[in-house]
Amino acid sequence: MRTYLECIGCLVKQAVEIAQTNLSNESREDFIREVLGGLSRFTYSDSPPILAKNMYSMVRTITGIHDPYADIKAFYNRKALEMYPYLKKIILSSKDPVDTALRIAVAGNIIDFGSGTKESIKIENTIQTALDTAFSIDHLDRLREKLKTATSILYLGDNAGEIVFDRLFIEELGAHKVTFVTRAVPIINDVTKEDARQVGLTDVCRVVSSGSEAPGTPLELCTDEFCDIYYSADLVISKGQGNFETLTDPKRSVFFLMMVKCAVISREVGVPVGSFIAMQRP
Amino acid sequence: MRTYLECIGCLVKQAVEIAQTNLSNESREDFIREVLGGLSRFTYSDSPPILAKNMYSMVRTITGIHDPYADIKAFYNRKALEMYPYLKKIILSSKDPVDTALRIAVAGNIIDFGSGTKESIKIENTIQTALDTAFSIDHLDRLREKLKTATSILYLGDNAGEIVFDRLFIEELGAHKVTFVTRAVPIINDVTKEDARQVGLTDVCRVVSSGSEAPGTPLELCTDEFCDIYYSADLVISKGQGNFETLTDPKRSVFFLMMVKCAVISREVGVPVGSFIAMQRP
Repeated sequence: MRTYLECIGCLVKQAVEIAQTNLSNESREDFIREVLGGLSRFTYSDSPPILAKNMYSMVRTITGIHDPYADIKAFYNRKALEMYPYLKKIILSSKDPVDTALRIAVAGNIIDFGSGTKESIKIENTIQTALDTAFSIDHLDRLREKLKTATSILYLGDNAGEIVFDRLFIEELGAHKVTFVTRAVPIINDVTKEDARQVGLTDVCRVVSSGSEAPGTPLELCTDEFCDIYYSADLVISKGQGNFETLTDPKRSVFFLMMVKCAVISREVGVPVGSFIAMQRP
Repeated sequence: MRTYLECIGCLVKQAVEIAQTNLSNESREDFIREVLGGLSRFTYSDSPPILAKNMYSMVRTITGIHDPYADIKAFYNRKALEMYPYLKKIILSSKDPVDTALRIAVAGNIIDFGSGTKESIKIENTIQTALDTAFSIDHLDRLREKLKTATSILYLGDNAGEIVFDRLFIEELGAHKVTFVTRAVPIINDVTKEDARQVGLTDVCRVVSSGSEAPGTPLELCTDEFCDIYYSADLVISKGQGNFETLTDPKRSVFFLMMVKCAVISREVGVPVGSFIAMQRP
């Protein structure tokens, strides 16, 4: 998916937030000038995660800060882990544990500092909504069918915090079948191997890095090893907008689980912002 | 007031909206690149309206569009004029018509495409709130005192649509005492002489241009004639954030009437976003 003008506005907003959180008053101005100059030169036919990667690479170079969201990510991992026993109980006492765990995993997708802000995250309300609300795009029947026979499931993670909800879902899917995928480096609040360790996912299933330094999975920037697993898995489950924006190869069917968080994705998939979707493409 | 990083994000958002409303898909990309490049070079110690002026000047050069908001401004002028008889009745039947008209004029300040969006404008609700709610900064006693003796009142307008509410207030102030001030050229949805004509204000009081091409009143860019009136008037009443951001000369006391619409101004004046204020400075 190409980058739209609204995505540029969103990236500038992220850069402003990074500057305000991490930089002194003196260096903020130079930083934002560099970022604006960079954004004026980037290739907009690239997907938004590629632009984000290029922008965060500038952030690292200019500020020397490798992981501006490290503390917040650890905070959300801890906070989500505290909810784990409560959510596990909901799942195990439900009529259809796989379906309930899937809905909770989609609700966890609300934790995202790229398209949302920390202030607006109301995870408890969102879980209830995900449990009660119909999905606006609902290919869950096809996913259930696939799950009956799939012995290798590639699960593309998205954000810290959310990864605890992914763990709950993966435990229902049969963790031995699942390979969980993280980004190669910290970018925004996206999952890394460190997050998988923090929430105990590394003890539950196989965890690999895609090799991507972008907040998505642009195959041209992933490792050959990852691409092999991607194309050979019986089933690919992808979480979040960043993966959706980058995984467009029609030769590989993917189930996209996500909340629609911005107007651009809303237009792209044809359902309102705030919708939950479980969409097979192609 | 200097330009803060959030202001840059806000200007980029405005540029994206202009591009989406006025430009073809092909030219949008070049346009936004130019604007980002411009914003990366502007002087941030200038006030936000100066940056806005420079950005909209680029908009005019690149797009050839002199007044991207002409239709929307005319629409809001008409819509506000339709409310005129109803609001006039509220004012005249109230215990304190000057106070009621002032509150309605402040409520009108919600019509602003710079810091808000058209979708979020709920003018009827806002009028009721302005009538019912205490001002978060309330120097109205001082203003009432000044009004007893002032024979020349300079009234700095802000936005189209809102100007109808200003007219109602000016009629209560005694229109013969008032000089209403517009911008020199169309910029965002700010008032021009054309707007004053559209809403009949030119038949009610003297209307002059400040000479400013910015969405504010930076005195260094205003005409000498305007500056003379500014410094000699018995009383200066200023509407909206743009005027507030630019009028900082401690030698001239000004009554600022406005809604607080963004985090930057909220920090600057120390009251929450959404507050109504009537503040004398200095």
